[in-house]
Amino acid sequence: MNTFVLHPQLQKDSEFILDLPLCTLRLIKDANYPWVILVPRMADIQEVIDLSESHQQTLWQESALVTRSLKHLFTPDKLNLAALGNMVPQLHLHHIVRYQDDPSWPKPIWGQVPFKAYSDKQLSDRVKLIKDIIATESSAEVTM
Amino acid sequence: MNTFVLHPQLQKDSEFILDLPLCTLRLIKDANYPWVILVPRMADIQEVIDLSESHQQTLWQESALVTRSLKHLFTPDKLNLAALGNMVPQLHLHHIVRYQDDPSWPKPIWGQVPFKAYSDKQLSDRVKLIKDIIATESSAEVTM
Repeated sequence: MNTFVLHPQLQKDSEFILDLPLCTLRLIKDANYPWVILVPRMADIQEVIDLSESHQQTLWQESALVTRSLKHLFTPDKLNLAALGNMVPQLHLHHIVRYQDDPSWPKPIWGQVPFKAYSDKQLSDRVKLIKDIIATESSAEVTM
Repeated sequence: MNTFVLHPQLQKDSEFILDLPLCTLRLIKDANYPWVILVPRMADIQEVIDLSESHQQTLWQESALVTRSLKHLFTPDKLNLAALGNMVPQLHLHHIVRYQDDPSWPKPIWGQVPFKAYSDKQLSDRVKLIKDIIATESSAEVTM
C-alpha cells in the first residue's frame, strides 16, 4: 500500500493549518481571497468516489465544518466549493471565500489574476485565525 | 415557506434528465463536454450547508451516484465537481466529464469556449443514455 504524500505543487502553493481526522487543511498562498484546501491524507485518491463511503461522509463533514468556519470568519458574498484536479490529480477540495469586489468576481478564480503574496505576518495571522475558528466550530459541533 | 422554482438561467441552459429523491438532474446544453448539474428541489438554498445535515448526506450520495454513472458511461480522464453560484446563487452542483483533448483542458471550463449546441437528436440521446445508466447504477446500489 502506498503512503500519502502531499503533491509537491500543493506543498508549494499552500501553508499547513491543521489536520482533521481525514484531511489536512491548508491555506493557499494567494492573498486575493481567503482560500483553503482540504486534502484527504490517503494515497492514490483522485475522485471523491475513490474514497470509501464512510470516508466520503467524513470528507463532507469536514467540508461543512470548514465552510461554516469561513462563513463566520469572513462573511462572504458567496462560497465556492470545487474539486477539479486537471493539473494536480491528487484530490483536493477548494473552499474559496468570494466577495463582489474581489479581483475575479463574478468569474471562477482560476486563471483570472496572478497569485498575490501574503507577507509572513499576514500569512501566519490568517493561519492562526482559521485554526482558532475551526477549533471553536468543532467544539460547538461536539457539544451540540 | 417558499416553493422551489428552478432558476430561469438554469432552466434555459439545461435539459431535464430525471428527479432523484432530493435533486433534479439536468444536462447542460453544451456539447463540448458531458456536463450535468444536480439541483436540490428546495427553496432558498445557496450553500451546501444551508441544507439540513440529512439533506447534505442525500446530496452527496446523489452526487456519488452521478459521478459513478458518468465514469462508467464516458471513462473521463478527470471529473470536475463544483458548486460556485457567483452568477446563479441557487445551489447547483456541477459534474463535468473532462478529457485531455477537450477544448478547455487543463483549465476549468468556465469562460473558456462558447457553448456548442447539441442537435435535438444528440440532446435527447444523451439525456436517455444518462437516465438509463443512473437507473442501472441506482438499482446496483439497492441490491448491493
